[in-house]
Parts: sequence; C-alpha cells; structure tokens
Amino acid sequence: MKTGAPRVGVLQAGPLNLISDVAGVTVGHATLADAAVQTGVTVIRPHPGDMFRDKVPAAATVLNGFAKSVGLLQLGELGVLETPIALTNTFGVASVAQAQIRQAIAANPEIGRELPTVNPLVFECNDGYLNDIQAMAVAERDYLAACHCAQSGFEQGAVGAGRGMSCFQLKGGIGSASRLTRPIKEMDAAYTVGTLVLANFGKLPMLTVAGQAVGRTLQAAADQYDDSPEKGSIILIVATDAPLDARQLRRLSLRAGVGLARTGSVFGHGSGDLALAFSTSYTVPHTPERGMPGVPMLHDVLLDPLFQACAEAVEQAILNALWSAASVTGRDGNRRLGITEFIPDWPHWLAQTQQTQIQGQT
Amino acid sequence: MKTGAPRVGVLQAGPLNLISDVAGVTVGHATLADAAVQTGVTVIRPHPGDMFRDKVPAAATVLNGFAKSVGLLQLGELGVLETPIALTNTFGVASVAQAQIRQAIAANPEIGRELPTVNPLVFECNDGYLNDIQAMAVAERDYLAACHCAQSGFEQGAVGAGRGMSCFQLKGGIGSASRLTRPIKEMDAAYTVGTLVLANFGKLPMLTVAGQAVGRTLQAAADQYDDSPEKGSIILIVATDAPLDARQLRRLSLRAGVGLARTGSVFGHGSGDLALAFSTSYTVPHTPERGMPGVPMLHDVLLDPLFQACAEAVEQAILNALWSAASVTGRDGNRRLGITEFIPDWPHWLAQTQQTQIQGQT
Amino acid sequence: MKTGAPRVGVLQAGPLNLISDVAGVTVGHATLADAAVQTGVTVIRPHPGDMFRDKVPAAATVLNGFAKSVGLLQLGELGVLETPIALTNTFGVASVAQAQIRQAIAANPEIGRELPTVNPLVFECNDGYLNDIQAMAVAERDYLAACHCAQSGFEQGAVGAGRGMSCFQLKGGIGSASRLTRPIKEMDAAYTVGTLVLANFGKLPMLTVAGQAVGRTLQAAADQYDDSPEKGSIILIVATDAPLDARQLRRLSLRAGVGLARTGSVFGHGSGDLALAFSTSYTVPHTPERGMPGVPMLHDVLLDPLFQACAEAVEQAILNALWSAASVTGRDGNRRLGITEFIPDWPHWLAQTQQTQIQGQT
Amino acid sequence: MKTGAPRVGVLQAGPLNLISDVAGVTVGHATLADAAVQTGVTVIRPHPGDMFRDKVPAAATVLNGFAKSVGLLQLGELGVLETPIALTNTFGVASVAQAQIRQAIAANPEIGRELPTVNPLVFECNDGYLNDIQAMAVAERDYLAACHCAQSGFEQGAVGAGRGMSCFQLKGGIGSASRLTRPIKEMDAAYTVGTLVLANFGKLPMLTVAGQAVGRTLQAAADQYDDSPEKGSIILIVATDAPLDARQLRRLSLRAGVGLARTGSVFGHGSGDLALAFSTSYTVPHTPERGMPGVPMLHDVLLDPLFQACAEAVEQAILNALWSAASVTGRDGNRRLGITEFIPDWPHWLAQTQQTQIQGQT
Repeated sequence: MKTGAPRVGVLQAGPLNLISDVAGVTVGHATLADAAVQTGVTVIRPHPGDMFRDKVPAAATVLNGFAKSVGLLQLGELGVLETPIALTNTFGVASVAQAQIRQAIAANPEIGRELPTVNPLVFECNDGYLNDIQAMAVAERDYLAACHCAQSGFEQGAVGAGRGMSCFQLKGGIGSASRLTRPIKEMDAAYTVGTLVLANFGKLPMLTVAGQAVGRTLQAAADQYDDSPEKGSIILIVATDAPLDARQLRRLSLRAGVGLARTGSVFGHGSGDLALAFSTSYTVPHTPERGMPGVPMLHDVLLDPLFQACAEAVEQAILNALWSAASVTGRDGNRRLGITEFIPDWPHWLAQTQQTQIQGQT
Repeated sequence: MKTGAPRVGVLQAGPLNLISDVAGVTVGHATLADAAVQTGVTVIRPHPGDMFRDKVPAAATVLNGFAKSVGLLQLGELGVLETPIALTNTFGVASVAQAQIRQAIAANPEIGRELPTVNPLVFECNDGYLNDIQAMAVAERDYLAACHCAQSGFEQGAVGAGRGMSCFQLKGGIGSASRLTRPIKEMDAAYTVGTLVLANFGKLPMLTVAGQAVGRTLQAAADQYDDSPEKGSIILIVATDAPLDARQLRRLSLRAGVGLARTGSVFGHGSGDLALAFSTSYTVPHTPERGMPGVPMLHDVLLDPLFQACAEAVEQAILNALWSAASVTGRDGNRRLGITEFIPDWPHWLAQTQQTQIQGQT
Repeated sequence: MKTGAPRVGVLQAGPLNLISDVAGVTVGHATLADAAVQTGVTVIRPHPGDMFRDKVPAAATVLNGFAKSVGLLQLGELGVLETPIALTNTFGVASVAQAQIRQAIAANPEIGRELPTVNPLVFECNDGYLNDIQAMAVAERDYLAACHCAQSGFEQGAVGAGRGMSCFQLKGGIGSASRLTRPIKEMDAAYTVGTLVLANFGKLPMLTVAGQAVGRTLQAAADQYDDSPEKGSIILIVATDAPLDARQLRRLSLRAGVGLARTGSVFGHGSGDLALAFSTSYTVPHTPERGMPGVPMLHDVLLDPLFQACAEAVEQAILNALWSAASVTGRDGNRRLGITEFIPDWPHWLAQTQQTQIQGQT
Repeated sequence: MKTGAPRVGVLQAGPLNLISDVAGVTVGHATLADAAVQTGVTVIRPHPGDMFRDKVPAAATVLNGFAKSVGLLQLGELGVLETPIALTNTFGVASVAQAQIRQAIAANPEIGRELPTVNPLVFECNDGYLNDIQAMAVAERDYLAACHCAQSGFEQGAVGAGRGMSCFQLKGGIGSASRLTRPIKEMDAAYTVGTLVLANFGKLPMLTVAGQAVGRTLQAAADQYDDSPEKGSIILIVATDAPLDARQLRRLSLRAGVGLARTGSVFGHGSGDLALAFSTSYTVPHTPERGMPGVPMLHDVLLDPLFQACAEAVEQAILNALWSAASVTGRDGNRRLGITEFIPDWPHWLAQTQQTQIQGQT
C-alpha cells in the first residue's frame, strides 16, 4: 500500500504493508461525513468465522488509561477475543457494543440463556474537534456495515473511525503497516506482524518523522496552532501469525508503545493509549467438548524479532495514517490539514530542513 | 435496617446498617417487573453534587474478570469517579452508560468539546435466568429515574438491578450493610465503612451462613437444583468516610473478597466478581484552578480496622440481600425462592441442623 | 497425614493429604532450634530434575504486598519457575537466594556468562517473636540441606521455615493438604491440587476453625494476648497436575485467598500474603532447540473444581499447620503454645462452645 | 555536567544536568576494578535523613521483567521507599540487600522486633561480559562506601554499578540528566525532573542518537559485533520535586520508557527494564503519631510537562552514560569501547553520515 509516507525501520514489509498481511485478517469501514458529523466505525476481523465459537488469543497493554474502551476487563482474565475488534468515537461506544451483542446473539441464540453473555470489545478516541460528538451519530447499523465490507485491501486515513480524528494537530485517522521477521536459525519460519492504528494524539511541536523532530520547525511556521493540553488518544492493534499465548501477546502489545514514542508521543495525560495484540495461529473453542489446541508456543527467547517488528510496524502505521489522510472540515468549520497538503513536497522540505540543522551544528 | 438476616462479625453497625451510613451517600432503584422482564437499575451517588465537577477518590479490585462492566480502565489510571455508580444487567450496560454520558453533558455542556469526555461507570450481572435479557429492556430513562429517587433509606432484595438476580440458586439481588471501626488511640476518630452488593452468584451447596456450611444440608432437601456451572457474578461497592487515596482504596476494595469468600464463593470462573471502594472524605475538582485538597491521608498502619469492617460489611450485605429478597417468577416460568420462603423459620432450622452436626461429631 | 485438625470442605483428600500428592513434588526442611535462634528453611521441589533446564509454569497473586520475597518480578513476566521454591525468615532471604544462585551455577556453569543469570525465588515471613531475626542465622548450607532431604513424606508444624512462626498468636508454621477434583464429564481425568503454607499471621480473636469463630471465645479465656497490630504473613503454595498455563495458574493462585479468608484473616496491612501456583503437567526447556511442549491446556470453563480444591486445601493446610505445631519457647523467653496444648480436647471443647451458642440464639 | 553527548529535547536542563538537580538527592559510587572484577555499587539517596523513619513516595513500572531486583513488591503495595536506592550487578543483589537491612537496623534497633522488618530496594543489571559475575565480588561494605560518599556532584560512565556494564555493545554504565518544566499558568511553580540510568542494554545496530539511527552505519564498520540475543537491562530512576502521590509517580515512571524507546531499545525479551519514580516534596513518617503530610498533590491535568521532562531526561541520561564511559577491558580480555574512543569526532562523523543519507534520499 503506497502512502508516500517515509519508510521507517529495517525489516521488510509484507506484500500489502497492511495488518491484513497476517493471513485471515480483514478490515472494514463505515464512514459518516456530513457537515458537522465526521466520524465512523472501523472493524478488524481476526478471522472470517464466528468469533464467539472460535475465539482468538489476545492481550492488551494500557499505556495511558484516560480511555473509555470496553471489553479489556474480560480479555485480561480469559486471554481471548470473542468478537471482532471495533473502533469508533468515544460517544459511539455504547451503540457499537450493543451491535456486537446483537450480532453475537443472532449467530448464537443461546447467549444470555443457556450460554454466558458475550464480551463486546470497542475502542474509542475523541474526535470532537472535527465531529459533533454530542450528536451521537454512530448507530448499530454502522458497525454491521463495517463488518460486512471487511476485506484484506482497505483504505487508510480519514475513513471509518478515523474520519474525524486529529494527529499532531494535523489530520489523523486510520493507518496500517506490516513487517516480516527475518528467519533465524532457531525458528521454524518467519512470522508476520501487522498493525492498525487509530491515530488521534499529539501536538504539532512533538511530531517526529523517522527520527527527525520536524514538529518544532513546523510549529514555527504555523502560528495558528494552539497551546491547549492534549485530549487525544491512540488505539494500537497488533496482529501476528506467530503462535503466542496471552502472556506473550501482552508482552508483544507493550512494544507498540516503542513505535508510538518514536513519533513524538509522551503518552500524554489526557490520551487513551491502548495496545492490543492477537494471534491468528490457533483458536480457542467456546466449549471444551470441541477440544483445546495443542499448538506449541514460540519460545520466549525468540520474541525479539517480533518485538522489533511490532515497534517498526506501529511507527510506520502512524506515518501511514498521516500521509493517507486528506484534509477534513467539520464541526463549526474546524479544519485539519492532511500533512500532504500542509507540506506538499516532503522530501524536498525535509532535505532543506536537515541541511539547515547540520549547518547549525557544525 | 432489619432484614432478619443472621448477624455476622463483631463490629457495630451504623444506625441504618446501610451504605448510606457513610454521610452523603444515597441509593436509588428503578425496577422493571412485568412477566418475562425482571430487571432494573440501581444507582449509588457518592455525594449529592455534580460528580464530574467534584470527583471522588476510588479504586477497584478484579477478583474475577468474567465481566462486562465499563469505566474501570480510566478509574485505574486517574483514581477518581466522575459519575454516580450504576448497576444493571449485562445487556443494559450500553443504555445506562449512554444515559450517564447524556446526564453529564446536560450538566456540563462543554464535555466532548472544550472539556474532555466523561467516563461512565456501569457494573453488571447476568440476570438471564429470571429476566429475558435478550429483550434489552433497560432504557436510559431507567437510569435517570434511579438517580432521581436516590436517598439514604432504600429497599434491599429484588429491587432495582437486583430484581432478576439469583444467589446460591435462591433469590438474590441488592444487599447493604455498614460497620463502624472502633476508635483506637492513634486515630482521630472512628470511621464508617458501608457496603452495597448486587448478589448474583453461587450454587446452593456452597451457601455458608455465618460460618455454617448449610448449603450442603439444603441441597440434600432440594433435589431440583441443577449441577450446571456458575454463570453469576457479584458487584461489591464499598464506601468509607476515612481519608484514603486511590492506592489505599484499592487495598480496601480487595478485602471485599474476604467477606465474599466467607459466604461460600470461590470466585467461580464464570463469575464477574468486582469490588470498588470510594471515599467521601474529600473531592478532586475537575479543573486545577479550583485547588487540590490538602487532606492528610490515614496512615497505612491504621487500615486494619477498615479492612475488618469491609470484610464484615460485605458478608453482612450478602446475607441481607438473601433475607430481603422476595420470591420472583420470571422468564419461561423460571422461579427463585427467597430464602425466607425456602426456610420460613431460620433460627429453629439452624439450631436443629447444628444439633445434628454436633451429635454427629461426638 | 493425620494431624488431628478438623476436616474442612467436601472434596476428597489425596493419599497423603500433602502437597506431595501432586506426583513429583517433594518437600525438605532445615530446622535451626537453639535458644534464641528458632528458624529455618523449607524447600518445595516441583520435580526432581534441574529446574533451570526444565522450568515449570507458574504464576502468583499478591493478596497483600507487605513482603520482601524475591523472584516474583521475573515469574510474572516469563510465567516459569527456574529454581526450587524456598521459604525462610525475612532476614534469611539474601542467604537463601545466594545459595540458589550458586546451586544453579554448579549445575549450569555457563550461567551469567554464555547463559543469562538465574532467577532465585525465596518467600519469607517475619518470625521475630520467637526467633532472634537480627542474628541472621540462616546460612547458604541450610538451603542446600533442605533441598537434599526433600521427599514426598515430610513433617508439618514447627519445622523448617515454620520453626519460629506464629499464627493467631498460637504456634504456627508449615501446613500442607491436598484435594482431588471430582471427575466431571468434560474432563478426561480428575486432578490433584496440593497446598503448602507457611502460616505466620493473625490475632487470636480472629481465629475461625471450620466456620466457627472460636477465637473470640478463646480470647476471653486468654487475657495475656496483646492488642498490637499484626506483623505476620502467610505464604501459600499451590501445586497441581492439571495442564494450565501461567494465565490460568494466576487465576488458581488467587483462590488461595478464599481459603485464607475463611480462617479469619482479613489480609492485614502488615501481612505479606502471597500465593503462588505451579503445574507439573509439562516443563518449558531453557533453550528453544529442545522444543516447546504441545500440551493442550485445560479449558477455562473446567477450572471451577480446581478453584474449589484450592480453597479447601489452603484452609485445611492452615489448620494442619496449627494442629501439627508443638509449643516453642524462643528469644527472650517468648513462647507460643501449640493449639493442641492450648486446648487439649478440641472436639469436646468445641461441642460445648457450640452448645452454649445455640442456647444463646434460641 | 558536560559529557559531550548530543543534546536532546527542548526543555532546559537544571544547573548540574544531573538527578541531583532535584534538591536533596545525592549519589555515591563504589567501584571495583581489578582484572576480571569490573563491577560496583551505586546508591541514590532521596534525602540525607533516615529513610526508614521518613519514607518518600515512589512507584515503579516494569517495562520488561527479565529482572532480579528486590523491593518492588512492597513498594507497589505501600507506595513508599524506606531505604536508599541501590544499583549493582545481578549476583551482588543479596549482599547489597543484606547491607541495607543491617544499615536500617543500626539506625533503628527495633526493626524485626518491636518494629516490622525493613524493605531493601536493590536493582541490578548483568555485567557478565566485562565482569566475572560468578566471583560475587560485591560485598556489604561496598554498599556502605557508596552511601557514605553520596553527594550532589558525582561521576558518570564506567563507575559504581556502571563499571562493567555494556550498552549497544559499547561501554555503558551510569548516566544522569535533568530537565525543568516550563512554568505554566495553572502551576504555582516550575518543577525539576532528574534521572539516573544504569545502561546495560542494546545491540549496536539499534543505536539511535537524537533520532539518528546511526547504529546501522556503525555496524557496517564494525564487523566484529556478534549476533547473539540481548541479555542486558536498564534501570531508570526518576526523581522530581513535584508533589505527586504513588499513583501519579507510577504514571511518571512509565514515561521513562519513552526516552528509552527513542535510543533504539525495543525492551528486549532478555532485558530487565525497570523504571522507578520518587518525589522529594514530602515524606511519610514510619509511625502515625508523627502525623501525615497534608500537601496538596499536583492536579493530573498538569502532568504533561513532567512526562515530557521525564522522557527527555531519560534519553539524555542514556546518551550521557555512553559519552561518559571510558573503554574498559575485563574478564577474559573482553573489551568494550567508549563511544568517544569508537568515534573520536562525533559531530564531524554525524554531519558526514547525514549528508550521505540526504543525498541518498534526494
């Protein structure tokens, strides 16, 4: 997926450079874009089947818990996902969670009767700058629409849950990337790590692109940018085909914070910075009668390549979100510029900036 | 509040023997009881003011996280409650959370615009045995109704969120109690610990009343009781007027598990067993301009009396729930007997049972 | 193992009613008993082999962290034990940890060079009432001695690390028990849960035996008992042959708190109350070349019988510690009575006490 | 403190650019450097008084728990430090912990008798490449020596616990830095954040200096660097004079990971990456009779400047460690080059490297 974003890291990307390079993973969007309503829903399906009957191992890390996501409590206890992963705005969580419940009941009518209830999993960021969040425009049908159009090729930027999001006071939204681990002698195979972010964090002066603290330079040229505290968030979804259990997936999810830190974030107080990692290498059946998987897990000493892939793919996904996002005007005429509109010729601009810095140093 | 339940523990109860013995705390119910719909909402208001503007310190313990409650993520990060505490059924969470959001916006219209979003806090248990939970009968108005009728005197048993709950395969629901710490020399004052539980857990053979494992005896006489795994839950709310910070309140909340264990629970796999403790001794303003409280916290070495009070008041509240709950018939004719109907003359029954046991021992 | 302690719970005990009913587990003691020195070391070996090369899955729960144990940090990250489990007094931790390091190096000379370092695991309680803890009498050789004499049959009470411990102001120390889960239809087999406790907690008035709050009665008859805050602790070790991963073992370890609560503890502020659970059903090799196990884990919905077994076996182990412990006189003439000396004819005493209570009720 | 290291971040450093810019904080080293023994002890004293009697609020974050540090368990429960903070090698932990216990007893002879025991706090990294760690050369006297020479001006680099440490396969060790928050309108004052790191992590290709991924370039020119997995660690100590409680200090400590990530670390599997933050703004007395502090805490919405200061000061401290460390030859002739010996003219080398990169891009 060519986004024009600078390439970070040393590992090779998968064929799509998307989370869907992890086989079976698909992504769908429902986008609401009408005047003051600039919002939506994005869904990540770990596999095409029924998630309630065939759960996937997963775990999460709370980098900063100023967040209203639902579902992490049970995920932490049981170590499995039993619905698709949904992303939306903060006040859309209830609608989307209710849609997940109804979807699971439709497929498994015993839920809440003979079977236990289902655990919805919805992440959110506050898109209130561009979107009239008090309108509570996200409806249950939007979740279903996003589910139904999920596929391996999908758009990035100002789409789905990303429609109204801001990042470094520029236009943010959905970004995705992937990295392949190098085959090493103890490993049977190379593994894929894919990431998808909902990027809605940061103030312009903090923006760091591939190690370059360009935000400070940009800030000087953009005097309209305000000094208010950050109220954004970022959701970091990590998928892998490596056979990991929930304990190991928690370890992997934490490394999403490494990629995030490198873009300039300090995991601000007002930011809900949550990372979730899941594996597609096996499923856990809802009922024991169907038998538990006997897959040998990856030995922990082989995790470093996955950690590196996660850090790189998260940093890349954030840049891809920025470079994919078109400018959007929303509530009260508030407007966020896409970085490609803000700086139309990035390579040239960067080279000039660096030249100036080097001359300043020497 | 006379419930007829056996008295447990050694500490003195407050005047009401309710959570509202902690000054300022009030409780309200909205009860839905119509054929297959047997459910409701219960609200605990830590103080009568606006919770968003004047937050109270709080913390939670997850005894078992098979649970779909919302709001604990941000509570864990920031250590404050910013809405009343709501209890309802598992599939009513979304409606109630949405109602909390709208309530907060109504009082603070800048929420989601100039101000950050608000963190709803809703706990749930699965009342699907008596209630047609798939009907999703709980509406936003039910939360508001429960808020508006909150007062220091309130009903227990099959009311509010407790309407459809089962406990030890008997009728469960809302129970409450309080205990006063004995004044000790290092403490300036005695403190009050109040508890409120939503009791929806346990199988009959496990029932333990004031140390007596009576469930085994009852089971023998009640052959209709099934052997299915537990799918219940219990929510344990602890209030105190002692000046504690969030770290100390987490410690206090864990001791709710002590009281729970003594009633026969083993924190079953399928049970969402969550405890939350809050203090009314000071508030934290939404904005720093209004100044932070300078209240000296209680020294940790003085916590033991509060721990004991919490354990006793939780055990008592569970017994109060059982002894307050009238029998209810709900979905598909399913019926739960109140313990006072199941065993009309408890003191006599217990004395006989014990007599038999002592003769068996000697 | 007949201790004379009252029998609690409903599940059947294993043949020894010891942690060593879990096949392969052995226990050894080194006891130091000379005037003011009343202390020692107890070692639990999960299997007879080299723990560094063949690690066992394990996890811990901190019920109350007023504790100086070492090794839980790495255990939490990696989910494995790589040394035997050692118990000793608070100021003996360093000596025992050093002994574990030297033992591992002796068997694996590459440790700290080609191989990483080893993670010692030592739990402690403060036996300073009977033992001159400032004498720091525990030496590295005591750990080795305890290792070398480990076997499936072992003493309980005032031995090993339990030598100087107090429990409910009576003589405490080492106790152990086991419970068998009932075979249920979804399970291939019945499983064994074994427990070993180092019991050094509680004040006399809190003592609860098989649900009977006898401490209050005993207190009245024992006016010499002081009112100082608790400074004790309890270490709760849980072994099972069920195939569980670290996430599940953490869940299991938490249920040790259920058994503890039922003996009268409120997890006092000054008490280090730590639970660790391990499984013997598979091992994790130090190096990936040797291949990871492909054992299917037990499905989580089958955990309840193990939770119940854990709760029962912990409560039983604490009673076994009390009933096994002979009276000991130590530092400054301080003395703790064994409960069998304190109340020579327990069944008779209890029957009388209960009779009085029943008459009081009716 | 001029180290010659590149300057990172935008905030102003304190007068010393050391952790001791936080008033009252002092640091001392004991260095052992004799052939195969290249190790030592570093001590950070939060204040000059008795830490057991006057504890300081503190909290920790485990970024990666492949670590054998002691003391974090009780720190997590009680939220206070009661000894100085000690750093040493992995197999020196026991000696140093024992020295801390004896030091506390010497000052407070009631410890372990009338008073509870004391909680030693010792962090470690594995310096086994340069140091014969199996020699267990660190003795109790080394801790005392480091304590006694603690002062606000102190050396960095290959000293104290840093003597034998490696970082990015170059010479690592002790680094320190500080940053001042900008006074903002809601804050009464500007605050200081000081950091001290024990840097012993990373492989050369990962080295990132002020955003420049120079490690890849250096690697190409240094073919002797091996491909073995990382077995290092980093300890990250954060001090501040801002009035924060333990909950807030945990939040602050997590941001040490931001600075670490920016130097190229992915928190490798084999690395013990631990961060601890403490505040000097008030103390907590050992006994309640002396009264608890009534200091208003900083409002959480004012934390962002502290988070940024922490991230910057940690990144700077790591660079200061590299630039301060002289080359060291130790065990078996193993040698680590200081970066200033490896690249004698850094500014010139970097300018050339960047020039080449810019030309490659355009």
